[in-house]
Amino acid sequence: MENIVKVFKGTGFSSLSAQEIEILENHLFCIDGKGMIVKRLAPSDSSYQSTLQAAKDEQKLIELKEGQYLLPGFIDLHIHAPQWAQSGTALDIPLYQWLNTYTFPLEAKFEDTAFAKKVYAHLVDTLLANGTTTGLYFATVHEEASYLLADICARKGQRGLVGKVVMDDAEQNPADYRDEDTESALADTERFIQRVKALQAETVQGVYPVVTPRFVPCCTDEALAGLGKLAEKYDVHVTSHCSESDWEHGYVKERFGKHDTQVLNDFGLLRDKSVMAHCNFLSDADAATFKETGTAIAHCPISNAYFANSVIPIKQFHEQGVEVGLGTDLSGGYDPSVYSAIRQAVISSRMLEDGVDTKKAPEERGTDHSRITVKEAFYFATVGGGESVRLPIGRLAEQYAFDAQVIDTTVAQASMPIFDENEPLEDIFQKLLYLTKRENIVSVWVQGKQINE
Amino acid sequence: MENIVKVFKGTGFSSLSAQEIEILENHLFCIDGKGMIVKRLAPSDSSYQSTLQAAKDEQKLIELKEGQYLLPGFIDLHIHAPQWAQSGTALDIPLYQWLNTYTFPLEAKFEDTAFAKKVYAHLVDTLLANGTTTGLYFATVHEEASYLLADICARKGQRGLVGKVVMDDAEQNPADYRDEDTESALADTERFIQRVKALQAETVQGVYPVVTPRFVPCCTDEALAGLGKLAEKYDVHVTSHCSESDWEHGYVKERFGKHDTQVLNDFGLLRDKSVMAHCNFLSDADAATFKETGTAIAHCPISNAYFANSVIPIKQFHEQGVEVGLGTDLSGGYDPSVYSAIRQAVISSRMLEDGVDTKKAPEERGTDHSRITVKEAFYFATVGGGESVRLPIGRLAEQYAFDAQVIDTTVAQASMPIFDENEPLEDIFQKLLYLTKRENIVSVWVQGKQINE
Ligand SMILES: [Zn+2]
Ligand SMILES: [Zn+2]
Repeated sequence: MENIVKVFKGTGFSSLSAQEIEILENHLFCIDGKGMIVKRLAPSDSSYQSTLQAAKDEQKLIELKEGQYLLPGFIDLHIHAPQWAQSGTALDIPLYQWLNTYTFPLEAKFEDTAFAKKVYAHLVDTLLANGTTTGLYFATVHEEASYLLADICARKGQRGLVGKVVMDDAEQNPADYRDEDTESALADTERFIQRVKALQAETVQGVYPVVTPRFVPCCTDEALAGLGKLAEKYDVHVTSHCSESDWEHGYVKERFGKHDTQVLNDFGLLRDKSVMAHCNFLSDADAATFKETGTAIAHCPISNAYFANSVIPIKQFHEQGVEVGLGTDLSGGYDPSVYSAIRQAVISSRMLEDGVDTKKAPEERGTDHSRITVKEAFYFATVGGGESVRLPIGRLAEQYAFDAQVIDTTVAQASMPIFDENEPLEDIFQKLLYLTKRENIVSVWVQGKQINE
Repeated sequence: MENIVKVFKGTGFSSLSAQEIEILENHLFCIDGKGMIVKRLAPSDSSYQSTLQAAKDEQKLIELKEGQYLLPGFIDLHIHAPQWAQSGTALDIPLYQWLNTYTFPLEAKFEDTAFAKKVYAHLVDTLLANGTTTGLYFATVHEEASYLLADICARKGQRGLVGKVVMDDAEQNPADYRDEDTESALADTERFIQRVKALQAETVQGVYPVVTPRFVPCCTDEALAGLGKLAEKYDVHVTSHCSESDWEHGYVKERFGKHDTQVLNDFGLLRDKSVMAHCNFLSDADAATFKETGTAIAHCPISNAYFANSVIPIKQFHEQGVEVGLGTDLSGGYDPSVYSAIRQAVISSRMLEDGVDTKKAPEERGTDHSRITVKEAFYFATVGGGESVRLPIGRLAEQYAFDAQVIDTTVAQASMPIFDENEPLEDIFQKLLYLTKRENIVSVWVQGKQINE
C-alpha cells in the first residue's frame, strides 16, 4: 500500500468497447500519488479483503454510499469558451450570420482579460460541476486571454486542452476581430505553445496547447501551412472545424476544389493528435483519411441541429475505424453538460435511421443501420474522447488517470426512479445516463484529486 | 386590496402569441383568495405605486430577488405515471415489443396500491420540482390505483388530469393486464369519473377525470363507443394515442380501413376537451377534423425519436389551426422536465426542416417551413397546453390561475452565464428556456399556493 494514497470502494461503470459496459460492482480502485489507478480489484480477487482492510487501517478508504455510483469523468472535445457568455441565445439564424452578427463581436471582447477571467472561471466551474473532467477549448485570437484560460484550467484542476484561435485572412474576418497578419498569427501561436507547455509542467492533471485554425474559411494558405509545421515541430494537438455545414463545406470546395479533409491534410493538420469538429459532410475517402492519420471526430449533436443542416452518420464513420468523441460545442450547442450531448447523440442517430418526413413511406424515409445506443454514446463521451486526444483517460481501469464523477441517485428533489432494491445494474446504468442532473453529481475527481468540495 | 391575498413583484415572461413574448418587467401580479391573477400592473400604470405600498403595508408582498424571474408553470399533456419506474431504460426496442416486454408487465404491478403510492408520490414531487404545475396522466387499468394518483395530485397541490386506462380487448392485451371485459371497463371508468369529480370539489387547483382508451389497438369497438358516450354524459376530458408510429397507424388502417382520427371521431372521442398524443401521421383531412372538433395534439418530441419513426410537422398542424401542447411522454420519453421537451421540440423541428441525410443535396434533404423557434415551443408548453385542456392556465395574465415557477439564475453551481448587467431581457428569456436546470427552479406555485417550501 505504500504507493497507494487513496482507495475508492463502490460500484462503477466503464466501457469495454462501444457495445459493452463493464459493471464494476463493489470494486476497489487504488490510486497512487500521481492520480493513476494502479490497481482495480473485484470482490472475488484474492487481495480484495486485505487491500480493503489496509485501506481502512491507513485511513485511505473512500466508500461510496448506498445509491451512489462511479462513472469516468466526461471528455468534451469541442467547447468555444468565450461563447459561454451567449449560450442559449441567437440560435435561430444560419451559421454565417451567427458568426458575424453575434459570435465574432462577442469574442472580440476577450481582448479585455478581466472580462475573459470572469467568463472563463465561470465556465470551467460549470463544466466541472457537470462532470466534465477534460475539455478541448477554442479560446479567441488573443494570446493573453487564451493563456489565461489554460491557467484557469490549471488552477481549478481541470484537464484543459486550449487553443489560441487563428483567423488571419483580412478579407474573410472582421477588421476588429482577427490576427493582425499571418506572421503574428504564427508567432503568437508559437509563443502560446511554449507558454502553455511551461504551465503544463506545474500541473498534475496536465494542460495542453492546441494548434487551432478556426476553420479553413478564416485562414490564409500561409497560415494553414505554418500551423501544420508548428504542430509537427512541437508535437501538439490540433483542432479545427471540418465540413460542418452546406455553406462551409461548399466554401472550401469552391476555394480549393476539394473537401476540407484533403485541404487540412495537405497542410499537415491531420495528425494523430488532431480532433476535428462536426465533420458531417465527410465522404468515404475523407473518413479513410481520418482513419489513416489518426484524426478524430468531435461529434456535436446539439449544435449540429442548429448549424450543420444534417445528422452526421456517426455509426458508419466509427465502424469505418474513425475515432469519435463528443462535444457540447458551446455555444452553437447551448448545454454545458456532456450528458445532454450523449442523449442528443442517441436521439439524432435515431432520426437518421428512421428518417423524419411523415410524407415518405418507411422504407424510403430513413437510412438503415444509423442509430447508436446509449452505451455507444457513453463510449464516445469517455473512451472515445480519451483515445481522440491520446491520453490515458476515459476508463475506470488500471493505468488510467482517476478522472471520475460520483453520481448520487438519492439526492433530494432529483432522486432517480429506482423503486426496486434489486434493480439490475444494467438498468441503473441506463437511468444514470438518461436521468442524471447536475445536482446528482455530488463529487468530481480529476487525476485523483477532488475538485468540488 | 380586500380581495387580494398576495402580490408578487418581479419580472416575468408570458406568451402573447406563438411568435410573441410579453416581457413583464417589474410587474405586480395580484392574486385573490382563489389563486387567480385578478390584477396585473406595469410600473407605468397609475395604481402601481399605491398597490405596491398597500401590499407592503398589509404584508402581502412577495418580491423576487435580483436574478430571479417568473415563468408560467408548465403543462405536461402526456405522462404515463406508472412508467416513471422504468424511465431511462429499455429505449432501444420498437414500440410493440417495448409495450409487451417491459411496459405492460410493469403497469400490471400497479394493482398493488402500496407500490403505486410509492411511484406516484415520487413522480408528482419530481414533476412539481421541475416546474410542471399541470399534468395530464395515463394511470393504469386499475381503478383504485388510478384514483390514488388523482388523490396524490389533489394532496400535493398539482393540477392533475387523470385517466383510468381502458384496454378491454382480450385478444390484443395480455391476460394479466387488461380490463376484465368491456362492461367492467366502462363501469370502472364511470365510477372513476364520479369519484374524481367528488375529489375535485375538495381541491383549490382542480383534479379532473379523463376518459382514456389506451389506443385503438387495445380496445374493442364497444368500449370505444361506450367511452365516447361517457365523455359526452359527464363532459369530461378525453385522451388517447393517435397515429403515433408506422406500426400503430398501419394497424388501425388495417382494422378499420381508415385513420385513427376518423375512428376516434366516429366513436365520439374527438371533442373540445380531447387531447391526442403524438399524431405524427395525421393527414391534412385528419388535421381539419382536429380543428373542427377542438381536439389538441400532445406533441412528445423526445419519445417520438424512439417510437414514432418520424418528426411530426408540428408547425404545419399549428398553422392549420390545430391546438398544440407538449408532453414528456414518460417513459417513452425519459425526461420528466418540460424544459427538455421544449428544447427537443425545437431541435426536432430543425431536423425536419433541414433534413438529416448528408448524402442528399440540400434542396431535397429537408422540408421547408417546418422549424419552430424556442418562443413557439414555450407557447406550446404554456398557452397551448392550457387551451388544449380548456382551463385558464398558461399565462401570467389577468383571469388566469397563478401557476408559476420562480427561476433563479444565480444558484450556486448552476448559475447562468449572465455577465452583462444590462443584458436584454429578450436574451435572458432565451437563456432561461435553454439553460434552466431543476435546481434553478427555486419555487413553484399552483393556483396561488406555494408547493415546494
Ligand atoms: Zn465549433
Ligand atoms: Zn403515450
